[in-house]
Amino acid sequence: MIDEVRQRFGSKAAITDAGDIEPWLTDWRGRYHGKAGAILAPASTAEVAEIVNLAAQCRVPLVPQGGNTSMVGGATPPPDGSALILSLRRMSAIRSISAEHNVAVAEAGVILAHLHEQAAAVGRRFPLTLGARGSCTIGGLVSTNAGGTQVLRFGTMRSLIAGLEAVLPDGSIHDGLSGLKKDNRGYSLDQLLIGAEGTLGIVTAASLRLVPAVHSRAVGWAGVRDPGAALALLRDFEARTDAIEGFELVPGDSLALVLKHVPSTRPPLEKPHSWNVLIEATSATAELDPVELLQTLLAKAIETKLVEDAMVASSEAQAEALWKIRDSISEAERSEGPSTAHDISVAVADMPQFLLNSKVEVERAFPGAVASAFGHLGDGNLHFHVRAGSRAASDWIEREGPAITQLVDDLVTQAGGSISAEHGIGQMKRTELERLAPPGDLAALKAIKRALDPLGIMNPGKLL
Amino acid sequence: MIDEVRQRFGSKAAITDAGDIEPWLTDWRGRYHGKAGAILAPASTAEVAEIVNLAAQCRVPLVPQGGNTSMVGGATPPPDGSALILSLRRMSAIRSISAEHNVAVAEAGVILAHLHEQAAAVGRRFPLTLGARGSCTIGGLVSTNAGGTQVLRFGTMRSLIAGLEAVLPDGSIHDGLSGLKKDNRGYSLDQLLIGAEGTLGIVTAASLRLVPAVHSRAVGWAGVRDPGAALALLRDFEARTDAIEGFELVPGDSLALVLKHVPSTRPPLEKPHSWNVLIEATSATAELDPVELLQTLLAKAIETKLVEDAMVASSEAQAEALWKIRDSISEAERSEGPSTAHDISVAVADMPQFLLNSKVEVERAFPGAVASAFGHLGDGNLHFHVRAGSRAASDWIEREGPAITQLVDDLVTQAGGSISAEHGIGQMKRTELERLAPPGDLAALKAIKRALDPLGIMNPGKLL
Repeated sequence: MIDEVRQRFGSKAAITDAGDIEPWLTDWRGRYHGKAGAILAPASTAEVAEIVNLAAQCRVPLVPQGGNTSMVGGATPPPDGSALILSLRRMSAIRSISAEHNVAVAEAGVILAHLHEQAAAVGRRFPLTLGARGSCTIGGLVSTNAGGTQVLRFGTMRSLIAGLEAVLPDGSIHDGLSGLKKDNRGYSLDQLLIGAEGTLGIVTAASLRLVPAVHSRAVGWAGVRDPGAALALLRDFEARTDAIEGFELVPGDSLALVLKHVPSTRPPLEKPHSWNVLIEATSATAELDPVELLQTLLAKAIETKLVEDAMVASSEAQAEALWKIRDSISEAERSEGPSTAHDISVAVADMPQFLLNSKVEVERAFPGAVASAFGHLGDGNLHFHVRAGSRAASDWIEREGPAITQLVDDLVTQAGGSISAEHGIGQMKRTELERLAPPGDLAALKAIKRALDPLGIMNPGKLL
Repeated sequence: MIDEVRQRFGSKAAITDAGDIEPWLTDWRGRYHGKAGAILAPASTAEVAEIVNLAAQCRVPLVPQGGNTSMVGGATPPPDGSALILSLRRMSAIRSISAEHNVAVAEAGVILAHLHEQAAAVGRRFPLTLGARGSCTIGGLVSTNAGGTQVLRFGTMRSLIAGLEAVLPDGSIHDGLSGLKKDNRGYSLDQLLIGAEGTLGIVTAASLRLVPAVHSRAVGWAGVRDPGAALALLRDFEARTDAIEGFELVPGDSLALVLKHVPSTRPPLEKPHSWNVLIEATSATAELDPVELLQTLLAKAIETKLVEDAMVASSEAQAEALWKIRDSISEAERSEGPSTAHDISVAVADMPQFLLNSKVEVERAFPGAVASAFGHLGDGNLHFHVRAGSRAASDWIEREGPAITQLVDDLVTQAGGSISAEHGIGQMKRTELERLAPPGDLAALKAIKRALDPLGIMNPGKLL
């Protein structure tokens, strides 16, 4: 099969040098290791289709890969070497971009940061962003229904996709790139492929929505009594403006850890508060000043006692300093010793109660451990971390990790939430999905997988 | 099976009186006629699940029905009497509604107008609306991914659904009502059920997004050179404001027909224009005056020559009069003789060219016929009508209708568009879907159907 691919599409289309393959056999966190006899790298959708046909004929599974930034081992081949990697990186064209129609058609291998630049070059913005933006690709973002930090206003990838092009497991090409706003011709294959982690076909391109570029932004910080007050504050703001793009909840002890461990960080407010909120507001025009808007909103919130104290950054440097506090929480926690991290979500309305309850439950079940939850309040998405505490042994994560994960997953499932908010299932969460998904839902997912990929050649060992 | 249902759930749960069943055997347009030995009417999701289990045991197909307002025969039972109707009308509770969290959980049998009222009662709005709002139900709106007149700003049902509850063909209950904003646990069953026309399961409830209530609205009318100018006008407005909710394209000859046939209609502008646009802008707060906004936008557009002439209604009565013109086009055309109607869509950017080309093509292929396209420009959704013309025989629709439909469907497919923008496939468009859908897509749809409903008990003869 490798020879056939090379013969048809040239030497660039089949990488077999062990040194060239090596970096793509392990996920970026170094947790999962696989083997593959080659990386196939088609240059076009037609080539992907031919490779999928060959894979079906030869019964060789394909592991689609973009930037290899999966958090759950979703792009790592199986360890037995039975599969080949299908890299989409050579398909890196932005086929079209229109400021007038606010749409870009990007191939699967386009790196997110490149799309950001190209959108900016036409005076627009692709609003989804996340830490891996310099290496993650559109195909992976689609296939994991990626979230990130700007979901509050513009939603996850699902909300930003107007249509998809993909090669289905039978080698046929699905073309939804015309991006119809109204289309009722049965089950939506586009929607089915979003978040399917490459197990139902290979996403080769996406038609993506653009939004107005940011003219200016304001970043503020508020001290609040508890998560309920933070949520009431968000709802109050949402009723008054569309401009809120970031609303991050930060517990008082997480802030204290950042101030303790991270150099050149300063407390944003005069006194410590039990809970804090970082707020970002943006404006697309010169007519709306987001700093003025945020000051007005916060002043009203202090009057109504929703907020205990607040400030708005008076310079871009100060704004960056506030975001640095938020982005340093994980680093600060690592300075205190080992911790587990859980990517979970609940309904936004349930978030305040869940934050408080789950901390109590976890700390009761694991004496000495410290649970800390922070994150995107407006999305119901928590970064739930559990630290070992000072007296923990060095092998704490190995010994306690799986049981902590099970408890956190149990709690979030009982609350009607999700054990995977934005990272997907991949290899890492398969056992937990099998354990906790409603049996009827799981049976439906497996039936769909069998129906569309009866030979099992699409990203084996992931998701299901 | 009927006796069993009656015994378990009482006499209200199984209607067998022929006179009571009769009105539900024919679609509201009177095109499709079916037979059914009973209407089963469960009162809860648990009862629906039991009925689906019974149906599987007895191999009796179920035809889910809400308000019976399908435009494509999607809720009419098969003529051989092999199926039973499953009416969701008794499941008519709004289980919860929250102004704070902008969400309502409505059962499948809730009538759209009732949801509108309940949302208004808490100071919010459910923004999707359409002609059948007094009888259509939430379950049907979900299962047909309904569109309507306000899609421009808030999208189709798909955009307004936070999560679904449904009974799958194996009798299991899928519960997605918690409405997570971030949830990446594999293929989305919610998304698969939206627009599935009841062929993959029975939608029993939906978690629906609410938006701020309308404080005031403005309705304007503009004369433009051609559809390209109309689209440029829309894009210009969209870049300046989020307030535009309606943007309806009206050809000059359609306006002339309305003025000729519909009593007490008057020309909105001094002179006739080749094309016209009806624009509605709304505001949720007293701070933004939509009349002033629309006047400013239109004045600028006259300066830049995007618009030839324009006016903004100065009273609610005048606003209603403008909408009456738009809503009377079909009636006015009927006064000119028989016509065919086609529910189609193309990409918004392709709309101006398609409008002009398709008229030429159809009129060339059917000499004497008059094609007229109008509708929701911002959604790419056309109401494409073909009139017989003055010399047509009385059986014109019977003789020419199918060939006209095929040509229109060919043209829209060649343009990358959809043969069903918002009505679905039902019984009416099955043959055309089979003829025109890409074979790979069609095979995938059929494989999904077989996988989830192997016994074929879910709305037989619809969609696929």
